[in-house]
Amino acid sequence: MSAPGPPSAVRPSDLDPRIAARLKRDADGLIAAVVQQHGTGEVLMVGWLDDEALHRTLTSGRATYWSRSRQEYWVKGATSGNRQWVREVRLDCDGDALLVTVEQEGPACHTGTRTCFDADVLLAAATEGADG
Amino acid sequence: MSAPGPPSAVRPSDLDPRIAARLKRDADGLIAAVVQQHGTGEVLMVGWLDDEALHRTLTSGRATYWSRSRQEYWVKGATSGNRQWVREVRLDCDGDALLVTVEQEGPACHTGTRTCFDADVLLAAATEGADG
Repeated sequence: MSAPGPPSAVRPSDLDPRIAARLKRDADGLIAAVVQQHGTGEVLMVGWLDDEALHRTLTSGRATYWSRSRQEYWVKGATSGNRQWVREVRLDCDGDALLVTVEQEGPACHTGTRTCFDADVLLAAATEGADG
Repeated sequence: MSAPGPPSAVRPSDLDPRIAARLKRDADGLIAAVVQQHGTGEVLMVGWLDDEALHRTLTSGRATYWSRSRQEYWVKGATSGNRQWVREVRLDCDGDALLVTVEQEGPACHTGTRTCFDADVLLAAATEGADG
């Protein structure tokens, strides 16, 4: 007689149940978050949040993720000092992706680059005006 | 005596093996892709690509995804006409997220909004200059 509810991968959380009800989590209870710099529009990184990481991100003002490798919460910048101050959080149309707009202090990437997408270009944009 | 190789979830693909070797796929053989409008920086949507979807995205000029619900490839806009013309593709520092820069025709979201993040604001940005 188990009641309907979130999958067992979901850890206990104080997240607003009205928000929790709209989330579509993966098998590990996580949602992908696109992290974007306010103003410039730079895509800084992709992180992963469970319900509690989202709760902390929404209420603390600091972007907080679930570390899949360490299996623990991490407040971005707690060690590195490269903190992310949360300005806005949006959920996508089907509830399985977040857009977190932040003010990024310093580099977002642990490699020291501004974004996590700076180093590995698989396809480069054509030169502007090349055909004209 | 099975040879080392990608997990069984990886479908056959013509993707350049030098790129395939850098990908860190999830248990379903997929990588999350952030799709961004060229020029404006709008984050339009998050899609999912397997090796072959990435190969097609890199070589066809049209953003191509793996549909997790339909379990098939879909070329964005093939049905709706809201096509995405690929300008640039980047892989992140740990190989598990893509940034695909596109020229989006029409709305990116199947709901008819410009982006998939337009409707559900969980946390709104503070008003500029509110404290002074």
